[in-house]
Amino acid sequence: MEMPKPDSTVLSKKDSILRRLQEVLPAGAVIHEAAETRAYECDALTAYRCPPMAVVLPASTEEVAATLRVCHELGVPVVPRGAGTSLAGGALPTADCVLLGVARMNAVLETDYENRVIRVQTGRTNLSVSGAVEEAGFFYAPDPSSQLACAIAGNVAMNSGGAHCLKYGVTTNNLLGVTMVLMDGTVVELGGAHLDAPGYDLLGLVCGSEGQLGVVTEATLRILPKPEGARPVLMAFSSSEVAGQCVSDIIKAGVLPVAIEFMDRLCIRATEDFARAGYPDCEALLIVEVEGSDAEIDEQLGVILQIARRHDPLELRESGSAEESARIWLGRKSAFGAMGQIADYMCLDGTIPVSALPMVLRRIGEMSEEFGLQVGNVFHAGDGNMHPLILYDANKPGDLELCERFGAEILKLCVEAGGCLTGEHGVGIEKRDLMVHQFAPEDMEIQMAVKDVFDPRWLLNPAKVFPLAASRARRVAG
Amino acid sequence: MEMPKPDSTVLSKKDSILRRLQEVLPAGAVIHEAAETRAYECDALTAYRCPPMAVVLPASTEEVAATLRVCHELGVPVVPRGAGTSLAGGALPTADCVLLGVARMNAVLETDYENRVIRVQTGRTNLSVSGAVEEAGFFYAPDPSSQLACAIAGNVAMNSGGAHCLKYGVTTNNLLGVTMVLMDGTVVELGGAHLDAPGYDLLGLVCGSEGQLGVVTEATLRILPKPEGARPVLMAFSSSEVAGQCVSDIIKAGVLPVAIEFMDRLCIRATEDFARAGYPDCEALLIVEVEGSDAEIDEQLGVILQIARRHDPLELRESGSAEESARIWLGRKSAFGAMGQIADYMCLDGTIPVSALPMVLRRIGEMSEEFGLQVGNVFHAGDGNMHPLILYDANKPGDLELCERFGAEILKLCVEAGGCLTGEHGVGIEKRDLMVHQFAPEDMEIQMAVKDVFDPRWLLNPAKVFPLAASRARRVAG
Repeated sequence: MEMPKPDSTVLSKKDSILRRLQEVLPAGAVIHEAAETRAYECDALTAYRCPPMAVVLPASTEEVAATLRVCHELGVPVVPRGAGTSLAGGALPTADCVLLGVARMNAVLETDYENRVIRVQTGRTNLSVSGAVEEAGFFYAPDPSSQLACAIAGNVAMNSGGAHCLKYGVTTNNLLGVTMVLMDGTVVELGGAHLDAPGYDLLGLVCGSEGQLGVVTEATLRILPKPEGARPVLMAFSSSEVAGQCVSDIIKAGVLPVAIEFMDRLCIRATEDFARAGYPDCEALLIVEVEGSDAEIDEQLGVILQIARRHDPLELRESGSAEESARIWLGRKSAFGAMGQIADYMCLDGTIPVSALPMVLRRIGEMSEEFGLQVGNVFHAGDGNMHPLILYDANKPGDLELCERFGAEILKLCVEAGGCLTGEHGVGIEKRDLMVHQFAPEDMEIQMAVKDVFDPRWLLNPAKVFPLAASRARRVAG
Repeated sequence: MEMPKPDSTVLSKKDSILRRLQEVLPAGAVIHEAAETRAYECDALTAYRCPPMAVVLPASTEEVAATLRVCHELGVPVVPRGAGTSLAGGALPTADCVLLGVARMNAVLETDYENRVIRVQTGRTNLSVSGAVEEAGFFYAPDPSSQLACAIAGNVAMNSGGAHCLKYGVTTNNLLGVTMVLMDGTVVELGGAHLDAPGYDLLGLVCGSEGQLGVVTEATLRILPKPEGARPVLMAFSSSEVAGQCVSDIIKAGVLPVAIEFMDRLCIRATEDFARAGYPDCEALLIVEVEGSDAEIDEQLGVILQIARRHDPLELRESGSAEESARIWLGRKSAFGAMGQIADYMCLDGTIPVSALPMVLRRIGEMSEEFGLQVGNVFHAGDGNMHPLILYDANKPGDLELCERFGAEILKLCVEAGGCLTGEHGVGIEKRDLMVHQFAPEDMEIQMAVKDVFDPRWLLNPAKVFPLAASRARRVAG
């Protein structure tokens, strides 16, 4: 992966930049010693690392605005960072950048149960948003696998989903308003605690824009009353294709489970060795969970089990207690950790129309043979968001590159199937060169022209999302 | 309301503009005789009228592109029009414009029940989208009151909702992709039959942009399986405030009816005289409808009725048959027609946080006394989208102006309550001068800069949404 060449003019001014930042920020908010900045050299795409010029850790919207004003004036690129859990390199620094981390901004600013909203600083972790309203019987719905660690800032930047997004939608469906600081330090308010708003939907535009249009410092989020109960069913099938067809039929029938999770043999095996959840020995399994009162659950599961039986399942295991539910979820929740035990892996994030699942799973199996690299599949099947894990050996020369080529082919397959390059991890640096397979030049041009509006000099997270040559041309022109 | 001054350069070139359009379009697609263009002089905001320079009625994306290329080259403003049902003047022509009507483009291009999507040309009416998939057991969820007449083009432009949007969301939640023609004739594809997409959310940005960013010619829409059944309850209360508080409590409890509709005494009376639905004699009533199987309906209505009883209802009338359901809905569906029988009225469209309903209803009552104009309230209460109807006498000099001033005060009240100027009707010309009450200058500047990207010369529906002085400055500068 090509890294952008640092701006030598910026680097030569490092001392005066640090001094200016220290003048406008409290003591301890600016970090620049190599030992201290090491933690910020990479995000969860650990194959790529680069120490930033400096790290700034503000505590308020005002401190973010002060930081951006200085950087804007001095022409310093800024890379925003939530909790650094991006799998696509969305928070990877450049050598000439100020890395702006919002982790210290984690306060709850307001809870309003009557209107069912919470307002938080965006450094707050996803799970602790639910934590703040749990006692009152509420929760925040989007639940990425990294929810213990990931920040709302990153969720907004990547429009994150999670296992439950089939029913509750992704971040954009649960975000009502933000406070955002533009690159020149202007503070704007988008949306609020009401439905829709006149004028253009800039809130929707910002959600998923990967930290390129502004730094989101506060967010108003929809919270929901906790459902009365939930019950998962584990379903074992004789092939991935059959399991994929079952998912497609459930969706087509119009019942709405909160989650349909998929695992294939490789993942099931690795998970059993690791977590011993007692999963059946099969080619593919689904975990389908429904929520509601007992009557609602019985009703919905009745329809779902009827559909599943048409696909000759090897086993249908309906949970009869909280302990059995926990065991059914145990394997799924351990899957990524378990896969990490058996090999290095790259986690992809393509999205496809649900009806294409059987075809795409079959093709991935064939391509796995062609490339000679194993692939495990564990993902949110109900909404067509796939996460193939390609196994490789980081110590074997050329294996990472082979893995990246294979990954690119899978994502191109997703686009050909009528899908897209990323469901929830974002483009980051990982997929920026693949954008040309999704978008025509005029489509990409209009996206970049929108960034021009918010950040004319392309200082904010500039080396991400778009092919490097395209974004570099933009910076020089600006 | 000030009308923009027509561009005399454009008007002087009328003959050559018509000739150029006739060259690139089939016979009959260009209309310019006064007798023929009369039908396009206004939309449903009939207080304002202006004959367009010409009307173009294309039959395909290619013909739309050809029209826009000519207009772009010659600097002719273009006003797009769906079915012309806008209550905010969104499709009002200017004297120097080509009015581009998509009504002839009403084909179904593809139905895909497996992925639950339909692709249509956007001139197709809302109700006939559901009609096309009805036999297969599906429907298209957004259901504006004008659904028999209004076009998908207008629904996308205004991000329309409807009685059922409490459960199913508004247009943006049911729109998966569009084909759009930019002002220079470039055809772009946004979104598709998959979840989310990499890059910026331009689809969300376009939805609700009131025909200012491009002309949407084709749309991929989510369709849903028809629910097993539905059952409404009619609830009568002793005051509007109590009814408003009941709505707030139902929402807070987390049950999800498909609709919560509100009517006050004035509307109930007018409706009874007109449609004789047998509504109780009371200050305010709610119609709450839930969907699902019989077991699900019983479950949900149990919770809802328990909440309602806490507010001392004068009557709770649960439907016991299809006939009773039809009678409960009859009055609500006749309400706008009934109000039109007793007086001229202006229909507002403010949105507020649900918890503010009691306060806002009380204030509207007080303001009605102050202005000396009666107000009827009939609206989608569950999502806080209010439609106060201010009654006035079109034949009484000054009454329309008084009514407009009153309306502006109500919308300012909505903004103060944490809400906004428009839920689903759009800004159009009606509310463009009120935008300054919702947005700071820097907020509006960034919205207009986004329009610059899509339409640098501000030729597309230019005199709408933003205060006239602001958009005029933009055109001159461009």
